[in-house]
Amino acid sequence: MTNWTEIDEIAKKWVREAGSRIKQSMQENLTIETKSNPNDLVTNIDKETERFFIDCIQQTFPGHRILGEEGQGDKLHSLDGVVWIIDPIDGTMNFVHQQRHFAISIGIFENGKGKIGLIYDVMQDELYHAFSGEGAYMNDTALPSLREVPIEEAIIAVNATWVTENRRIDPGILAPLVKRVRGTRSYGSAALELASVAAGRIDAYITMRLAPWDYAAGCILLNEVGGIYTTVEGEHFTFLDNHSVLAGNPAIHKIIFNDYLHADK
Amino acid sequence: MTNWTEIDEIAKKWVREAGSRIKQSMQENLTIETKSNPNDLVTNIDKETERFFIDCIQQTFPGHRILGEEGQGDKLHSLDGVVWIIDPIDGTMNFVHQQRHFAISIGIFENGKGKIGLIYDVMQDELYHAFSGEGAYMNDTALPSLREVPIEEAIIAVNATWVTENRRIDPGILAPLVKRVRGTRSYGSAALELASVAAGRIDAYITMRLAPWDYAAGCILLNEVGGIYTTVEGEHFTFLDNHSVLAGNPAIHKIIFNDYLHADK
Repeated sequence: MTNWTEIDEIAKKWVREAGSRIKQSMQENLTIETKSNPNDLVTNIDKETERFFIDCIQQTFPGHRILGEEGQGDKLHSLDGVVWIIDPIDGTMNFVHQQRHFAISIGIFENGKGKIGLIYDVMQDELYHAFSGEGAYMNDTALPSLREVPIEEAIIAVNATWVTENRRIDPGILAPLVKRVRGTRSYGSAALELASVAAGRIDAYITMRLAPWDYAAGCILLNEVGGIYTTVEGEHFTFLDNHSVLAGNPAIHKIIFNDYLHADK
Repeated sequence: MTNWTEIDEIAKKWVREAGSRIKQSMQENLTIETKSNPNDLVTNIDKETERFFIDCIQQTFPGHRILGEEGQGDKLHSLDGVVWIIDPIDGTMNFVHQQRHFAISIGIFENGKGKIGLIYDVMQDELYHAFSGEGAYMNDTALPSLREVPIEEAIIAVNATWVTENRRIDPGILAPLVKRVRGTRSYGSAALELASVAAGRIDAYITMRLAPWDYAAGCILLNEVGGIYTTVEGEHFTFLDNHSVLAGNPAIHKIIFNDYLHADK
């Protein structure tokens, strides 16, 4: 039988260790900054970090399968068994350009059910952590259930891209929402934006295309605080496909879905 | 003769002390009022913090004048003499909603010339500091001069508000810029957005209306790293009036100004 407490402990340990390695790599590479271009540099650290997790998992839990952003894991067509969904560095543009505001994101699933979610803001040393049925935490602080917020007092994370001409959504759909809410933000890391929703700092997050490794851990956090997530079409997530994400506290999710995304229905 | 080294030392000390007081006050309940509209939140902590600075300045430097957001300072029609321009909490919405991502912002001027700029990210314990002619720092780390970045690789801070229907700018003007740059961000604190430009993490910041206390300290930081700031009409700042702000590294500022804001000329 799968020992989830053991997996939980060891996953947290690996995430913090990977964070230390990333910090160390950043310092080493800063000293030889002129030699390589920033995009190559990040690709290396992304790949090295994913490789670190894959080696750890395969050695310790040989039966587990791995879906990773850098493609060094398994090719998955189902979530049968235990599956780790890994983004070694979520917010790569921030990583390259800012050396902050990026995260390691890991969701661990058992037969398709989210068991453990880990989002580690490396530079901030903030580990968001959820264990299915036992709540969500930011480091040692329990995250309370999301409270209802009137839409006029809500802060939502939506990038300017989705209210200007783009390939995925008519910019006129979300524009009136931007006007109605108290404010909008955009941080450049889906994992940290989902963690911010789970922590109640942002009331909703809308984006038009994410991969499973971008949203897997965030969804497991949201489960524990009463957050809701669907595609903008209202579909459930498969955790295997790329799609849009509307995540938020239930009241705000409902208003955005009914009054803006599907106002014609 | 004005002892600027003394002012610099004591101003930094007061800013850190004010930060500690804010953290302590946060434990207590926030009493939220609304000023001119629901988006313009003010708290008792804003007022107390401004009062703290005013009391300190008036006691130590009785000849100095003070322009503060909460209006407890002087009514100024010029920047003659030594003037402190103070925002006790920049990013009030973040302060109320997130308990992070806000800053104390202080610019100190001598006969209209920016001498000292201080932006303190309280929760992050990051003090951005500039002394005219002696460079800018983030805590003890010197901020290098801004390097040139191609517009296609730039990250700019622009809120979704300015690319949707609003009272201040045709949303069609900045929309093509959002498409052209590598990414956009919005953090909800003008002071921290300007500090991010000064630190090279953001290549430009555009917003349509700020008060002097929002931008004063940020401009003094930008002076020290070769940043450029004008209104969107290309006017210099008076540091007494509300107006738009386009701040960035020189190359990006020029492109945004010429190719987007004034493409018709």
